[in-house]
Amino acid sequence: MSSLNLLAKFVIHILHQTIKIRIFLPFNVLLNRTALMKRILLFGAGRSASALIDYLLKEAKKYDWELTVVDSDQELAESKINGHPCGTAIAFNIHNIDKRQELIRSHDVVISLLPVRYHKRIARECLKIGRHMLTASYVSKDLVDLAEKASKKQIVFMGELGLDPGLDHMSAMFRIDELKKKGASIRSFKSYTGGLIAPESDNNPWHYKFTWNPANVVRAGQGTAQYLENSKLKYIPYHHLFKRHEIVDVNGIGKFEMYANRDSLVYRRKYGLTDIPTIQRGTLRHLGFCEAWDALIELGLTDDSFPILDSKHLTYKELVEAFLEDVPGRSVKEKVASLLGVDVESSIMYKLEWIGLFEDKPITLRTATPAQILEQLLKQKWSLEPEDKDMIVMQHVFEYELEGKEYKSSHTLMMKGKNSVDTAMSRLVGLPLAIFVKHLMLGDYHIHGVYHIPVRENVYLPILKELKNLGVAFKDEERMIAVKDPSTV
Amino acid sequence: MSSLNLLAKFVIHILHQTIKIRIFLPFNVLLNRTALMKRILLFGAGRSASALIDYLLKEAKKYDWELTVVDSDQELAESKINGHPCGTAIAFNIHNIDKRQELIRSHDVVISLLPVRYHKRIARECLKIGRHMLTASYVSKDLVDLAEKASKKQIVFMGELGLDPGLDHMSAMFRIDELKKKGASIRSFKSYTGGLIAPESDNNPWHYKFTWNPANVVRAGQGTAQYLENSKLKYIPYHHLFKRHEIVDVNGIGKFEMYANRDSLVYRRKYGLTDIPTIQRGTLRHLGFCEAWDALIELGLTDDSFPILDSKHLTYKELVEAFLEDVPGRSVKEKVASLLGVDVESSIMYKLEWIGLFEDKPITLRTATPAQILEQLLKQKWSLEPEDKDMIVMQHVFEYELEGKEYKSSHTLMMKGKNSVDTAMSRLVGLPLAIFVKHLMLGDYHIHGVYHIPVRENVYLPILKELKNLGVAFKDEERMIAVKDPSTV
Repeated sequence: MSSLNLLAKFVIHILHQTIKIRIFLPFNVLLNRTALMKRILLFGAGRSASALIDYLLKEAKKYDWELTVVDSDQELAESKINGHPCGTAIAFNIHNIDKRQELIRSHDVVISLLPVRYHKRIARECLKIGRHMLTASYVSKDLVDLAEKASKKQIVFMGELGLDPGLDHMSAMFRIDELKKKGASIRSFKSYTGGLIAPESDNNPWHYKFTWNPANVVRAGQGTAQYLENSKLKYIPYHHLFKRHEIVDVNGIGKFEMYANRDSLVYRRKYGLTDIPTIQRGTLRHLGFCEAWDALIELGLTDDSFPILDSKHLTYKELVEAFLEDVPGRSVKEKVASLLGVDVESSIMYKLEWIGLFEDKPITLRTATPAQILEQLLKQKWSLEPEDKDMIVMQHVFEYELEGKEYKSSHTLMMKGKNSVDTAMSRLVGLPLAIFVKHLMLGDYHIHGVYHIPVRENVYLPILKELKNLGVAFKDEERMIAVKDPSTV
Repeated sequence: MSSLNLLAKFVIHILHQTIKIRIFLPFNVLLNRTALMKRILLFGAGRSASALIDYLLKEAKKYDWELTVVDSDQELAESKINGHPCGTAIAFNIHNIDKRQELIRSHDVVISLLPVRYHKRIARECLKIGRHMLTASYVSKDLVDLAEKASKKQIVFMGELGLDPGLDHMSAMFRIDELKKKGASIRSFKSYTGGLIAPESDNNPWHYKFTWNPANVVRAGQGTAQYLENSKLKYIPYHHLFKRHEIVDVNGIGKFEMYANRDSLVYRRKYGLTDIPTIQRGTLRHLGFCEAWDALIELGLTDDSFPILDSKHLTYKELVEAFLEDVPGRSVKEKVASLLGVDVESSIMYKLEWIGLFEDKPITLRTATPAQILEQLLKQKWSLEPEDKDMIVMQHVFEYELEGKEYKSSHTLMMKGKNSVDTAMSRLVGLPLAIFVKHLMLGDYHIHGVYHIPVRENVYLPILKELKNLGVAFKDEERMIAVKDPSTV
């Protein structure tokens, strides 16, 4: 550690002791204090934590930081630390309040990669104790409220710092701010992301494997999707969502199916595009996925609202049968095909059969919801083989007017993983968050005000710059699509 | 008041003063104390309160009771009391905790006809203060837990005391207990109830008007319906529920459409029918209703999960259009008909047009959910005219075996209202609850244990008996349907 650092630490120590002085310190002095933060706490060592941990451990060595990784699975946490001298693995029950608060208290920055339901209580404790709190998850209304309180205590609460949400915001805002600076008027913004299986590892009829939280995949789209098209509100109810997928041709990569996300309207304001006529966010899947997934919705198998009584006494075939009308003399497959209005030998039926829906195999879960049963079934079918490569595709497409001309630009990211552990998903979720943590630790951010997603230039610019150096680069294309009537210019 | 009553009152007063003695009193003495309860508190003076209030005021005069009716609308509460000397109307904000608790404290029995969301807090206060608490609503898990605690304090918490749920339980349990006493083995139980418009007042193409909480009608069936058919679990997801209606021929009254309720499986245990092979509860509608209601679900207009942004700047037609795919050159009606797979001139389309879905009339609600917007629209179309008569139809159908023979019995109730105020719905929701209150006040019930819905003989028998005297009588039919092979008898 440099002697300058030591001196600074000493000064901070004195300030800590003299509370009254500290209270009256101007904000920038407090922020400089950030430069001397030392300890990072990470809750959750699961799938998306690998790249984050690797990055932070490397930086920790450089800056003399310490990273504590907490998971209910000690072995998992240790394997991710892999003996690094700056890392410590701790296992404890997250419901142990005392231990949790003790850990938060002894660190400067808290990252949560736990399931969303834990964020609120961790955020409350971070607020009380006065620690920065960061996540890769969607920011709920509760967390926005807590972020407002946090900003008054000059601590940072930020979410949506991963891939989608996360990198999508950062890379979109980079273009939006650029276009605004040029004086362009943005007419349309469409943004699509897919966590997919790479073609070379795609060996199942669904052309999909889990590279992300299976629970979220099974429940995706529940609710009503909302977006704006030519100044008209558009709503798609869940039971039509996968039927109404569109085909998107991503330049140079190929064609994908896209279904609309729930949240496009919300981002008009967050992106500063309040008056934009067209805005849509969506999710990409390989061709053929959506109509088959729609069949599962149609059957009722994605319902997560009620438990099947004694589900462990049923087989998968019996469960499917329970959702069908009785037609004497017809097989389950015939009844499903008839409900869906497709041929028994169609590709949809083949996909349903391939996951084992028509098998007389017992369900092993007891009193589980249809969605939980489907999730458990799909986990066995859609898991990555050790050498499988995943693939992330993200594309932003803008249409805008500038100096009497209309342009269309696209900004495309494609990244493949190396294997089932070093996935593109893990890198692209973990790295944006990790880089944010680094800059926060170094005191590079002069953050004040409520600041709960990464849409401001001072936040996204250093992250995008460093990601580029790490090989995460968008391919940009642009062409003029029309010249406006000069009399209207 | 008789001098015996006065003497008893005096004794109770002494007991009240000497807490220690009271604690050690045996249970039956405490119950006798009930006989001297005097004051009834009713929260909610809305549509279903009329018959309840009339009944209780009449009994109040006889027994020297007092009834306090609380509603946010003082005039409404007063109109229901109608100057009766035993009644008092009070208006206050239900969120005023002090006033609420003061009222509970100064009464012996509390009835809530408020929306379900208020029941929990009122129940908590009744538990704390030690007052009986009754409702006509479904009993939630929270209320069952509170009822358990209440039973330890020897106070009664009971719900599902209205029509459906309520009278359906009582009349079904009367038959079930009767069959069990005979030694019959019940193979099938189906129970249907409809709150309908009487044919003589049926003058709209939907053959439906609101006689009950419109919000509940619009949201009916959301979730997944569950029942048991020939020992097989059956599930119907919401987007198929109204499509899969069945035709039920109710003896002597006519044919109705029936859609399955969510909750049939739950009542196996509550009715003591754990091993029954077939059990189904359902809701009746006039013919033609279900396919048109399904069209509203299909469009997405019953969704209550998200607000339409700036809904007051939209017309009904624009709202419908927002749920449809763009097809250039097609009218909204053509697009809806195409989505539903019906002719533009079909009866479904006529029903949708009749409620005003295709009109360029502005929505007056701001930031409301589709379900709220639909509810407001339907309230204008489906309201009762002053002289309209409603009609309640309830039918239980049993199949059972007894001494080697198989029987089918049906038990049918049909009741019409007098006009839009004195409805059959109001009578059949209010009277069972009111009669229960009377017997509770009189100390006729020797209730102990958790007792949260009216399925026990000592509760339902006096209620059914008195209802019969008031003209609420079931028509019973029974026939033998098979003789079992004597070798198996």
